[in-house]
Order: sequence, then C-alpha cells, then structure tokens
Amino acid sequence: MSFFEILDITAVVAFAISGALVAMRKRLDPFGVFIIAFSTSVGGGTLRDVLIDKPVFWIENVIYFYPILIGVLLAIFFRKKLKYLSKSLFLFDTIGLGIYTIVGTEIGIVYGLHPIICISLGTISASFGGVTRDILCNKIPIIFQKEIYATASIAGAIAFLVLTHYKVDETVAYILTSSIVIIIRLISVKFKLQLPTFYTHMIS
Amino acid sequence: MSFFEILDITAVVAFAISGALVAMRKRLDPFGVFIIAFSTSVGGGTLRDVLIDKPVFWIENVIYFYPILIGVLLAIFFRKKLKYLSKSLFLFDTIGLGIYTIVGTEIGIVYGLHPIICISLGTISASFGGVTRDILCNKIPIIFQKEIYATASIAGAIAFLVLTHYKVDETVAYILTSSIVIIIRLISVKFKLQLPTFYTHMIS
Amino acid sequence: MSFFEILDITAVVAFAISGALVAMRKRLDPFGVFIIAFSTSVGGGTLRDVLIDKPVFWIENVIYFYPILIGVLLAIFFRKKLKYLSKSLFLFDTIGLGIYTIVGTEIGIVYGLHPIICISLGTISASFGGVTRDILCNKIPIIFQKEIYATASIAGAIAFLVLTHYKVDETVAYILTSSIVIIIRLISVKFKLQLPTFYTHMIS
Repeated sequence: MSFFEILDITAVVAFAISGALVAMRKRLDPFGVFIIAFSTSVGGGTLRDVLIDKPVFWIENVIYFYPILIGVLLAIFFRKKLKYLSKSLFLFDTIGLGIYTIVGTEIGIVYGLHPIICISLGTISASFGGVTRDILCNKIPIIFQKEIYATASIAGAIAFLVLTHYKVDETVAYILTSSIVIIIRLISVKFKLQLPTFYTHMIS
Repeated sequence: MSFFEILDITAVVAFAISGALVAMRKRLDPFGVFIIAFSTSVGGGTLRDVLIDKPVFWIENVIYFYPILIGVLLAIFFRKKLKYLSKSLFLFDTIGLGIYTIVGTEIGIVYGLHPIICISLGTISASFGGVTRDILCNKIPIIFQKEIYATASIAGAIAFLVLTHYKVDETVAYILTSSIVIIIRLISVKFKLQLPTFYTHMIS
Repeated sequence: MSFFEILDITAVVAFAISGALVAMRKRLDPFGVFIIAFSTSVGGGTLRDVLIDKPVFWIENVIYFYPILIGVLLAIFFRKKLKYLSKSLFLFDTIGLGIYTIVGTEIGIVYGLHPIICISLGTISASFGGVTRDILCNKIPIIFQKEIYATASIAGAIAFLVLTHYKVDETVAYILTSSIVIIIRLISVKFKLQLPTFYTHMIS
C-alpha cells in the first residue's frame, strides 16, 4: 500500500465521519447516517466522474465501501468522545480536502482538459461531498458561508498544475500541494479569516 | 403485456401520485406538481442509469410519460378522496418500492457488478425518487427519518441476489422478492418499528 | 460572431447575474456567489448533457467561464444600482429563457429523440439552472411556485419543433421561438397571470 493510498483511505474515513456527525446531529436513523456519510465521501468524486463521462470510481471499485463503513461506526461508537477529538477530526477533514483536490486535478490533467477545468474538477472533487451532505440535511452548504475552504482547494489545484507543468517529481508535488491546502486552511481558521461578503437588499 | 410490466406501470403511477400529493400540500402550481411527480417516479432510475453510464431509461423510451401524467391527473382530480385511499396508496407505494428494488438490482447483475453495488443500485432506484421529491420541496428526505423504508429495499435486494445466484425461476424470484419488501414494510408500519437513532450534541 | 452566439453569451451573463443576486441576498462569500452564479448558468445544460450522455458543454469548451465571471463582477460592483435595473435584468433573464429553450430542444432534435423528450430537454436546459440555484440557497424552486416561467418555455419548445418540422429557415425559427417565449412571459408578468394551484390537506 503506497503513501498516497494510505492518505486516500484516511480522507475517505475522515469525510465519512464528518458526514455521520452532521447526520446524527439531525437525528437521522442509522441508514440515514450511512447514506449521508457515503454521500459526503463519494459525492465530489461522483459528480467529477459523471461530468467527464468517466466510469464512477466507487461503482468500479467496491473497496471504498469499507472505509466509509468504518468511518460511520467510529462516529457512532465514539460520538460522545468525538467532541474532544474535534481538532484531529478537523485535521483529517483538511487532509481529505488536500488529497481530493489533487485526485480531481490530476484526473483533469490525465484527460487533457483545459487548466481552468482541471482546477474546477479538483475543487468539485474536494468540496461537492460536503455540499451534498448539507443539501440532504436541508442546510445552506457551509462552504459557501464560512472559512477559506474552497479557496484553499483552488490554491492547491493551481499549485499542483504548476508543479506538474514543470515536471516536479510526483511524490514531491503531492506533498507540496497537500501542505499548501492544509496550511492555508489552518491559518485561515486560526486567525478566523474569511472572504468578505456583500450585503445587499434588492429586487425580489 | 407481462405481469412484470403491469407491476412496473403500477409502480410508476403510484410514485407519481405520491409526488403529486406532496407537491400539492406545498401549494405548487400544476407545472410544479407535474415536475415533482415526474422526479419522484424517474429520479431513482435516472441516478442509477447515470451512475453506471447506461442510457437513461425515460429518454430512450418515452412510454413512461403517460403513466406519470395519469398519476398526476388522478392525484389532482381525486385529491379530496385520496385521504380515504391512503391505505391503498401506501400499498401502491410499497409495491413500487419492491419492484424498483428488483429492477435496479437486476441491472447491476446484468452489468456484472459487485453484489454490494447491485444492492446499492437496487436501493438507489427504489428510494432516490423520494429523496429528489423531498429536496425539491425543501424537506429533509423522509426515508432518512421514518419507517423501515430503505431497510426493506436492502433486504429485498439481498434476497434477489441470493435467489438469482441459485438460479431460482425469474418469476418466482420477482414474486418472492416483492413479497419480502412488502411484508417487512407492512410489519414495520403496523408495529411502528423504526431503526434506533443516536442523539448527539457535538462540535459545531 | 453570429447573432445566435451573441444571444447565447447574453443569456449566460444574465443567468449568472440572476444567480449572483440571489446568493448575495443570502450573504454568501464571493466564492459562494461565483458557484451559485455558475450553477445557475450551466446547471440546466449540464443536466441535459448528462441525461443524453453527451460531453458536458462547459467541460469541452472553457469559453463559458468568462461571461459567467463577467456576470458575477457586474452583479457585485453594480449591486446597489441593479435595483434600478431590475426591468432590464428581467428582460435578459427572459431572453435567456428563450435561448436556452431553443438550444435544448435543438439538441434533442439533432439526437433524433422523441418530440416529448425534445420539449423536456428544452425546458430542463432553460429552467434547471434556476432550480439548482434555489436548492443550493435552501429555497423551494421559484419556478414551481410563481409566474408562467416553465410554461413559456414549454410553449416555445413546441413552437420550435413545429417550425423545424416544416423546415422554416433556422434564423426565422430562432427569432419566432424566442419571441413566443418572451411575449408569453412578459404578458403573464404584466397581468400577474399564474397557473391555478390546488390546496389540499391530506394524509401525512
């Protein structure tokens, strides 16, 4: 098992936990919790694969069910302790953000798509799972409101494109890109940075 | 017209009625009612076909428009009487659940997919229409909250896989599987069974 | 650049502005505003392309990013003045409705699909972007509730099918169809026409 695969599985588990926690807070039943966890984990990659007409990754490779199930079970059994773990959870989620950004951007490069599309695919892979989670739980997607979440993903995707363009070694590019995403997000949360919003009262 | 086709059409009409009733309760206009009924009927099969990159069934075969239209008209004209019909409607909806589960699972088998994926496709076919209906009407999908709905579908999908594995006659497998789904759902509603939920207050 | 391409770009910009305005009213951050504007502009065409298994238009042709970006910037910088512009915005939106209806219907014809499917594709292209916008902003889609919106699109799609069937010159068909959609919508808003709704209290 490669370093990248370990990170990938970690990301899937972390996103599954994050979905399961939101679903339990909405008092869904275990099936609902599993579906929300599943959607959070695979939602971004599914939309990415459908958009570029590639076989959907979890249909082709059933292996992804197991880390999701593990994430759900962890969330259910440790739900009382997880509040003390929120920092490590936040870290996992951020690692997931970094890895999914790389996976999505790389697929765009492999398919020979325009750089803007590659960046879009990276960001969609990394953030659409959380959007799906929030829509299914009837909330406005949090990534549209708080924190430098998608912005970190976009910065990472651009970095990965540049590194790939200059043929930097793959492992180095993976580590550098993840670090950029993770550092931007950590700094923005630490200092409560967020993009400015525009309040407006207009035609209804 | 085969026995299976009659059941299939019945399921489409039943799901269309169920969608139309929810839409009318939300006071949507007739176009909205039709779209919600349509989404409820074809939503699950559409997601299934997109996920496995099969041509979407209602694009290929326009025949499905008519039972949906009939379901909408029935719901509109008999909306005052349908409250007395809620039991038969519930029965139709449950028949639909059983049939759509079989259709989805069978397509997975035909495409040679992993059993876990076949079960997922069966459950997606049977329940995603209702999820679409509830999202469009701005509600948390009811299948995540109440009743043994998707659980009955999963049990049916597993039964159908086992029966197919042992090469049980197709018609027998159809009838047995539908019966399993229908009986589980009837019993769970009769005795107000539902899966336990986990209340939790955690990191926000 | 043809007359049709100019109209197409106008439609993309108008829909992007409409999405950005709704997102700003929900106090989303600039990234959220861009994503909502993007979804409003390309959502309908994306669903259309996925349903008929055609390469998604904005993945293939990156050119669509620019008018969307322009629409977002216009909405942000002129957000205070746009209330005085609401009539021209309404007009752009209606032009967009007409053009997207034609694009969707024409693709259905080119793919040799059944007339009912062509009409559906026209209406999906024209209205699903707005549905996506409203779902992401956690509202019941407005097209299900108010105004003769989708109805104008359906009427336009039928007109375009008839004109194409009788081999009317393409440019004439474009202009006639757009005019029909625009006139129906203008009249319905002017006279506050809307489809009747059916209030109902039923089985819960």
